[in-house]
Amino acid sequence: MEFQAKDIAALLNGTVEGDPEVSVNNVSKIEEGKPGTLAFLANPKYEHYIYTTAASIVLVNEDFKPAHECSCTLIRVKSAYDAIATLLQMYESMKPRPKGIEQPSYISDSATLGEDLYVGAFAYIGKGAKIGNNVKIYPQVFIGDGVVIGDNSIIYAGVKVYTGCVIGKGCILHSGAVIGADGFGFVPEGDFYKKIPQIGNVVLEDNVEVGANTCIDRATMGSTRIHDGVKLDNLIQIAHNVVIGRNTVIAAQSGVAGTAKVGENCVFGGQVGIIGHLEIGSGTQIAAQSGITNNVAEKSVLRGSPAFDLPYYQKCYVVFRKLPELYSQLRDLQKEIRELKSK
Amino acid sequence: MEFQAKDIAALLNGTVEGDPEVSVNNVSKIEEGKPGTLAFLANPKYEHYIYTTAASIVLVNEDFKPAHECSCTLIRVKSAYDAIATLLQMYESMKPRPKGIEQPSYISDSATLGEDLYVGAFAYIGKGAKIGNNVKIYPQVFIGDGVVIGDNSIIYAGVKVYTGCVIGKGCILHSGAVIGADGFGFVPEGDFYKKIPQIGNVVLEDNVEVGANTCIDRATMGSTRIHDGVKLDNLIQIAHNVVIGRNTVIAAQSGVAGTAKVGENCVFGGQVGIIGHLEIGSGTQIAAQSGITNNVAEKSVLRGSPAFDLPYYQKCYVVFRKLPELYSQLRDLQKEIRELKSK
Amino acid sequence: MEFQAKDIAALLNGTVEGDPEVSVNNVSKIEEGKPGTLAFLANPKYEHYIYTTAASIVLVNEDFKPAHECSCTLIRVKSAYDAIATLLQMYESMKPRPKGIEQPSYISDSATLGEDLYVGAFAYIGKGAKIGNNVKIYPQVFIGDGVVIGDNSIIYAGVKVYTGCVIGKGCILHSGAVIGADGFGFVPEGDFYKKIPQIGNVVLEDNVEVGANTCIDRATMGSTRIHDGVKLDNLIQIAHNVVIGRNTVIAAQSGVAGTAKVGENCVFGGQVGIIGHLEIGSGTQIAAQSGITNNVAEKSVLRGSPAFDLPYYQKCYVVFRKLPELYSQLRDLQKEIRELKSK
Repeated sequence: MEFQAKDIAALLNGTVEGDPEVSVNNVSKIEEGKPGTLAFLANPKYEHYIYTTAASIVLVNEDFKPAHECSCTLIRVKSAYDAIATLLQMYESMKPRPKGIEQPSYISDSATLGEDLYVGAFAYIGKGAKIGNNVKIYPQVFIGDGVVIGDNSIIYAGVKVYTGCVIGKGCILHSGAVIGADGFGFVPEGDFYKKIPQIGNVVLEDNVEVGANTCIDRATMGSTRIHDGVKLDNLIQIAHNVVIGRNTVIAAQSGVAGTAKVGENCVFGGQVGIIGHLEIGSGTQIAAQSGITNNVAEKSVLRGSPAFDLPYYQKCYVVFRKLPELYSQLRDLQKEIRELKSK
Repeated sequence: MEFQAKDIAALLNGTVEGDPEVSVNNVSKIEEGKPGTLAFLANPKYEHYIYTTAASIVLVNEDFKPAHECSCTLIRVKSAYDAIATLLQMYESMKPRPKGIEQPSYISDSATLGEDLYVGAFAYIGKGAKIGNNVKIYPQVFIGDGVVIGDNSIIYAGVKVYTGCVIGKGCILHSGAVIGADGFGFVPEGDFYKKIPQIGNVVLEDNVEVGANTCIDRATMGSTRIHDGVKLDNLIQIAHNVVIGRNTVIAAQSGVAGTAKVGENCVFGGQVGIIGHLEIGSGTQIAAQSGITNNVAEKSVLRGSPAFDLPYYQKCYVVFRKLPELYSQLRDLQKEIRELKSK
Repeated sequence: MEFQAKDIAALLNGTVEGDPEVSVNNVSKIEEGKPGTLAFLANPKYEHYIYTTAASIVLVNEDFKPAHECSCTLIRVKSAYDAIATLLQMYESMKPRPKGIEQPSYISDSATLGEDLYVGAFAYIGKGAKIGNNVKIYPQVFIGDGVVIGDNSIIYAGVKVYTGCVIGKGCILHSGAVIGADGFGFVPEGDFYKKIPQIGNVVLEDNVEVGANTCIDRATMGSTRIHDGVKLDNLIQIAHNVVIGRNTVIAAQSGVAGTAKVGENCVFGGQVGIIGHLEIGSGTQIAAQSGITNNVAEKSVLRGSPAFDLPYYQKCYVVFRKLPELYSQLRDLQKEIRELKSK
């Protein structure tokens, strides 16, 4: 399908600068732009590409001031990043999605299935599971007994959901995600460890996205709970009894230890670690590789391991990088004082 | 099923304080306690909940001294944490467990199967594999050729066990765990890398628990060996030829590099890294996010990256947090000395 | 099969020292050597074992000078490490490999299959997928629609390859690897996050090895690209739009954030993190647990989080470990200067 610049501009509430009738049939990155494609420029770091890109149309922010001439047609929109997301969503929604029930699959007689499902081959749906409408269950997925999955959720190939867990509406679970494995709970008995059975579950509320190979453990009792709109990247560990507040976003390889409570609208970088039993206030931002060892007030911005106030951490680290110099200056001072004293 | 306080107390060798005939049919967290449930109080941090909880019974340590009146019935036991583990185990053991062989599954003709097995749909059992009695193999599990699995082990959905690996008795492997993938061994050949085949295996001894998506690589030669009673959390990396001693416990996202030898009864926090070829003495404790770059004596307690003695690390870190101040004090001293000298 | 020392020496271009007719039928580690096996000594740390090993033959570097007498037969070769790799490859190549198409498996009618395939039970091959010759697809693998896999690649049990991704020739993907899950891209819309569809793919070029449970996300647009000969260990995160240059080697649990570009022949230790949008020059070496927050020049050697020049980092860390002492020396100096001034 072809779209003209003027149609795209109308759709995005933008204005055309250049040829309104130039048409595109695909999207591209600005640095790899080809004729007949649409690219976008949001990050100023990539601005220089706009002067040479072969893309036919480039979406730019409405306040973009080109330093040189652009041979492409521009569409000015409020936010180029936002607009490209909208276009990609349209593009995505036009793709055919799998439907129907492939064979062989294993669906327990006591499971309840909604309408317009996709169940891929080798998928397993346990006793008493309840699957909503328009759910996509890709091949080799395991849905344990009594699991509930809300409407419009997508469960990609090979996801495992243990017994009794609850997945909300509009959730996306990527391959290899494990929902509801036992929390890591043991009580020492002499040198040995006795397992504490984990009889709780995991609840994902609506519009949660869980990355590939991310693990969310079931609660010892009650629920490990991931609130509405939370986005978890790949290879994340969420331990038992953890609560993650609404719209919090966590980057890859981070871990949240048992019973920690993370607020709403937090943003964690990659490889962050949160010690167990802490409370992290809403709106907190944590830099990559940081380690949180104490409760955190709302809207904190943290870095380090153990972490503290980010701008102050950076000042400390600046001096850390001068430590050898500082050390020798201290030695010099000691010498000078010895000399002064000896006079 | 309902249980009365006096019966639970008898079972746990505890004493009732309150109504001995109040009955419960489930457990709950003390902060979410409901009538008809039993909660427990082990961590003093949660003590305030006991004065308001709606739970009918609360297990407490025998030396617990309430600061206020409790409306619930108390059962005093030697260790509330231990007692709740015992109760949960009873509860768990009463749950029905899956049995029999679901279809379609793939069991090689030359595999040997014990009694009272569960083999879930889409599970694969390779040539010459030997499966003990009362083993549970959940759906979509892969058991490679020649694998041996001891009695009473539980292999959750989607676990992959490569050719020739050995799983002991009473082990629990959570979904997505990969046992016996190739160790990461290459030898440079010019700019390229030539693969060193990994012809060894992995041996898990008895009562080992392996968390979700944890990886234990096969040895180059011989065995990567996880001794009795080791507990590994989720997303852990155990490299080729590693040995982990009895009853060592490792938290999520930690990694142990090749040929390292970890002693018995160690405890590692999350996201710890151990460099290859090291020896970590028994009884060592390592704080989360630490990096171990040297051999470690028995019963060490370590923090940092590179890690050293924990209490001393914390002293260093206290000064790290004062570095900007320290830096400016040094500048002041230099100035003062210049002034003194000029006099 | 038995091999005599003289035959092995001929094969490896080595020279025998001891009994040229002693024979072996297996390999062993030098510290666990048994009669009838061949071991090797490459790391001088293990030299003491050669004087007591029961292995019949030991491969050593040609310049090895024994400090004591060795009872085993030595074969001197240019590089013992290289030679053992060659022997293990021969040993490995003699092992039978699975062949044929096991049932039940799911192969779309529109998929194109090469010759001499193995397709394990419960494997899934989607519409329009193209599988090369001599490819091994183990049980429970998911190959999405339109995926291309080059000749001689091995896809171990349970690997998931999303729609439209491309795997080169001679690649090895270990169990649980996820290729082509959605990149982690969202645009804030008030408090919520709107998903940016990820319509690109992942391209693995030839001879790439991907460790167990490693995740490589599909690009937003265009391709996430892993060049020839790259070796990725287990549990690694490669985000969307990342490029990894030829023959780069990355150890377990490292993460590379979105749109970062890593050069050729880099070596990263375990648990390293690379911030998004960076360029890492070719030949860069990064110590374990380091965090890279800026562009990196070619052939850099880095440590720390944030990382800088490794030898200099180590000097800083030496002083970090003296900070309490340094702090008290500064206090002493302040006192001395106050005294001097008061005079």
